[in-house]
Amino acid sequence: MMLKTHQCGSLTKANVGDTVILNGWVQRRRDLGGVLFIDLRDRSGIMQVVFNPDFSGEALQTGDKARNEFVLAVKGKVVERDEETLNPNLPTGEIEVQVSEIEILNEAKNPPFFIEDGIDVDEVLRLKYRYLDLRRPEMQKTLKLRSKAAKIFRDFLDEKDFLEIETPILTKSTPEGARDYLVPSRVQDGKFFALPQSPQLFKQMLMVGGVERYYQIARCFRDEDLRADRQPEFTQVDIETSFLSEEQLQDMMEELMVRLFKQLKDVEIARPFQRLTYAEAMDKYGSDKPDLRFGLELVDLSDLVVNSGVKVFASVVAKGGQVKALNAKGCGTWSRKEIDDLAPYAARYGAKGLAWIQVKNGEMKGPIVKFFSEEELAALKERLQAEDGDLLLFSADSKKVVADVLGNLRLKIGKDLGLIDESQFKFSWVVDFPLVEYAEEEKRFVALHHPFTRPKEEDIHLFDTEPGEIRAQAYDLVLNGYEVGGGSMRIYQKEIQEKMFSALGFSKEESQEQFGFLLDAFEYGTPPHGGIAFGFDRLIMLLAGSSNLRETIAFPKTASSADLLSDAPSEVGQHQLDDLSIRLAIKQEAGNN
Amino acid sequence: MMLKTHQCGSLTKANVGDTVILNGWVQRRRDLGGVLFIDLRDRSGIMQVVFNPDFSGEALQTGDKARNEFVLAVKGKVVERDEETLNPNLPTGEIEVQVSEIEILNEAKNPPFFIEDGIDVDEVLRLKYRYLDLRRPEMQKTLKLRSKAAKIFRDFLDEKDFLEIETPILTKSTPEGARDYLVPSRVQDGKFFALPQSPQLFKQMLMVGGVERYYQIARCFRDEDLRADRQPEFTQVDIETSFLSEEQLQDMMEELMVRLFKQLKDVEIARPFQRLTYAEAMDKYGSDKPDLRFGLELVDLSDLVVNSGVKVFASVVAKGGQVKALNAKGCGTWSRKEIDDLAPYAARYGAKGLAWIQVKNGEMKGPIVKFFSEEELAALKERLQAEDGDLLLFSADSKKVVADVLGNLRLKIGKDLGLIDESQFKFSWVVDFPLVEYAEEEKRFVALHHPFTRPKEEDIHLFDTEPGEIRAQAYDLVLNGYEVGGGSMRIYQKEIQEKMFSALGFSKEESQEQFGFLLDAFEYGTPPHGGIAFGFDRLIMLLAGSSNLRETIAFPKTASSADLLSDAPSEVGQHQLDDLSIRLAIKQEAGNN
Repeated sequence: MMLKTHQCGSLTKANVGDTVILNGWVQRRRDLGGVLFIDLRDRSGIMQVVFNPDFSGEALQTGDKARNEFVLAVKGKVVERDEETLNPNLPTGEIEVQVSEIEILNEAKNPPFFIEDGIDVDEVLRLKYRYLDLRRPEMQKTLKLRSKAAKIFRDFLDEKDFLEIETPILTKSTPEGARDYLVPSRVQDGKFFALPQSPQLFKQMLMVGGVERYYQIARCFRDEDLRADRQPEFTQVDIETSFLSEEQLQDMMEELMVRLFKQLKDVEIARPFQRLTYAEAMDKYGSDKPDLRFGLELVDLSDLVVNSGVKVFASVVAKGGQVKALNAKGCGTWSRKEIDDLAPYAARYGAKGLAWIQVKNGEMKGPIVKFFSEEELAALKERLQAEDGDLLLFSADSKKVVADVLGNLRLKIGKDLGLIDESQFKFSWVVDFPLVEYAEEEKRFVALHHPFTRPKEEDIHLFDTEPGEIRAQAYDLVLNGYEVGGGSMRIYQKEIQEKMFSALGFSKEESQEQFGFLLDAFEYGTPPHGGIAFGFDRLIMLLAGSSNLRETIAFPKTASSADLLSDAPSEVGQHQLDDLSIRLAIKQEAGNN
Repeated sequence: MMLKTHQCGSLTKANVGDTVILNGWVQRRRDLGGVLFIDLRDRSGIMQVVFNPDFSGEALQTGDKARNEFVLAVKGKVVERDEETLNPNLPTGEIEVQVSEIEILNEAKNPPFFIEDGIDVDEVLRLKYRYLDLRRPEMQKTLKLRSKAAKIFRDFLDEKDFLEIETPILTKSTPEGARDYLVPSRVQDGKFFALPQSPQLFKQMLMVGGVERYYQIARCFRDEDLRADRQPEFTQVDIETSFLSEEQLQDMMEELMVRLFKQLKDVEIARPFQRLTYAEAMDKYGSDKPDLRFGLELVDLSDLVVNSGVKVFASVVAKGGQVKALNAKGCGTWSRKEIDDLAPYAARYGAKGLAWIQVKNGEMKGPIVKFFSEEELAALKERLQAEDGDLLLFSADSKKVVADVLGNLRLKIGKDLGLIDESQFKFSWVVDFPLVEYAEEEKRFVALHHPFTRPKEEDIHLFDTEPGEIRAQAYDLVLNGYEVGGGSMRIYQKEIQEKMFSALGFSKEESQEQFGFLLDAFEYGTPPHGGIAFGFDRLIMLLAGSSNLRETIAFPKTASSADLLSDAPSEVGQHQLDDLSIRLAIKQEAGNN
């Protein structure tokens, strides 16, 4: 077997005269008047190899049998191309290899889609033939990007004295958070392991264990109904530190992000990153992960409209709701239909209607204008900095619905109007999240992040009176409207942890049963600690300029959690179930086998 | 909160005069005539901090409350110690910190064992309180070693253009190999994922996908009854390459091992590593993972004894078995009892008895001597290079039993006689493994490595006649008697893969059902490829000089696959089982709740 001496894409004019061996796949072949040209592709790129009766001898006959995606070994001399065959579109377009020997290492059936970028092929087909899909240059590029990103993370964290430590995948099921994947234990009948939703408890144990700085690029699992941007198994860069303040940790993570984007995208990101409190973010952008690449901020008008003639506005405010608006600059010329088309979109986020005012020739127009007094209209105009050509969009509802409706309208209009500079990377920290929020269904408070999040020192007294008002030492790192990281300082004192569990409605027994080992650990000298986790898949998605998480994962699962390549999940043998002492509890439908 | 400016162990005489803040745990405290000395420990080491009414003020009263494992923040000035308090046993023993301020960051109950090296504590207790166990310097050292080893692997593989690629943990159950851990699918009733025993199929898919060089430090899972050196989840450095020969790959891996041991142990390991065929290894050492730090080789005597008067020897050989011996140099003076004590050990490996001859004063002595002729004795003596003071130990049985018995006796005697230089690291490649072996129970051939191992070109014709004689392009990397890595060149041609499946007794349907996607992939231009996987836990164990795999893992499981810290596996809620459409099939014993 002739094994490669060079990568296809690594050859340059400097190699002219060298005899080389290349191994790769046939990208395409052309026969021009008895001369055979093959574009040979490997991971590094493409090289044109030429078969000609003059120098190829019998290799020409063998080469002639090659078809797309055949695997070849060719030996030959690197030469400059003739003037007329130069290919400026190919990095190696100035040279070619004159083949003297060839081996067909393997044959190939005609692939179900072309191995090239930008193909328009059903994703199901791409996933089923993932091994062919991965050959496409854009997929190879993403694989390389991901590998390099991991390296940058690791090198940085290593420089900062973090230890990479692996935590278990076979762990214990805990009640909070998303649904666990379970693994029946064969040794202990009736018991189950759970796959970790994150290494949270273990990384906290490592801090109790004196590790001080830990990281892991960790696989995590959530058995949830999947949205387009979720995967049942996903990867996070998991980080935990002791004896650092929230600011020190954030500072270090900014340095990391700046390096990542410098090395991978060659962009300089300014520091420090903008900081917004959760309250500010919700107020201005209607989102805890605002896209800061454009303005179009939400403006609160509740005080202006509480006594206005627009009854629905006044009554919403009177009932403790909000009236807010955003000023869609330049949309004052939209037709009635264009405006009305926004309503169903707003409705998706809970809007019962969508009031609006257009500013034209110095005048405000629209169905609700007549219910306002002159003074109210003037005040609105001023507060919204409304000018000719503007469109004002109103939402009146509960705080949450207003935020959802206007936050999403803001994103839509920002995109539609081309306000977003896609080449920009705008990081921000969203801080001071609420510690807990009231879950109507469960009739209790639930942790907004997780039950180990440390409350702000000055809010601790609110545990007894207004738990919903407690702010947490929790922070999200937001990039272009995506949450790419999130973390918190953790509770390290047993009495605070108990207050927290009690606020969440856990009895002493329940908290002991579920988190007993953590509470025990807190009694043996737990250091102040905190950390962060980055959504690695999502970061790669943003770095790759993709909008689909599956493009960043070598072997992703579909929205129904299936692996189309290996056909998992699958049925298993009865003896396997017997070993585990479990039975299927499904009804065998007629016709099933 | 006073946050650290320095690590305890990082301070030197160069810091004298500096004011520093340290955070750490109380290792011990002493009160000497009103002066309080605390050894403060963090990840980096220990610093003595001193409280004295002269410079500590109120900090002395607070410091006095500190007990072992309290978490402290202290601020103070670095000073040289008095001549009489120098501590040459401590890297920081020439300096101390005069405390001016203190904060007790957290208190601690008295820990169940001392936080120090070499403790004699039941491992169960250590695992239950792993967060305390990990504070001990020797455990911290192993965590650091493991993290550093991973970094060396990654840096090396990155230099060699390998891409780090993550493969799924939720995969498909396959019939070959060990027992799978199963994960019920909630979305697809009655179907299961399996946790991967290795990323074998996926890394082969990546090669088909044109990745050429892949690695991953991968978590793998086997639901087996555990031996001391097994864990249900373990870590391997998983590597796969295309277009490399077996020799090229081994060469690269040698370079990697040399670097690993140079950087972590500062030892120079000579290359190339010794190469033994499987047949040689079994012949000389009775093991496919020979410890080459000492000789004591097995010697085949079958031809010498086939006609001898020792009936059992003669008849074993006549029936196709073997008679072999090893020469335990210097054990010729052992008492009859000492020799007899070897018998039960040999019996453990299947020996029905243990024949022996001692050489004393030029004469051969022992119960079997009288059955040999003079010539036979002389030939024995010569072949075994027997001299005065030697003890010859014989085994006569099937090839397999002889290898097991003498191979293990060799190890025992090597250890007992102190023949092993524990500071040595002796690597070797064991190559040319059999492709398949006959499994008596299953009455069929099974793959010795796995069903994707490539047979040696020159043995392929044996598929039709003597599959058991086919040698594989498979290799193990052996270090000091442990298999630390193993791999093979893989089958890349569909017709060979089909021959292999057929040799393993799989019908076309079975192989299609189980490995259909691999067989499909083979039709689309699969490159020649092969790889290796290193047992990361075991490598760390050897690097750490430990003999217990659990010492190398932050949160290991016990022999009954339990995590004593988090109490996993555990019972789960009925609604969780309902979600998964499974039921427990265990009998509830009376008294169980």
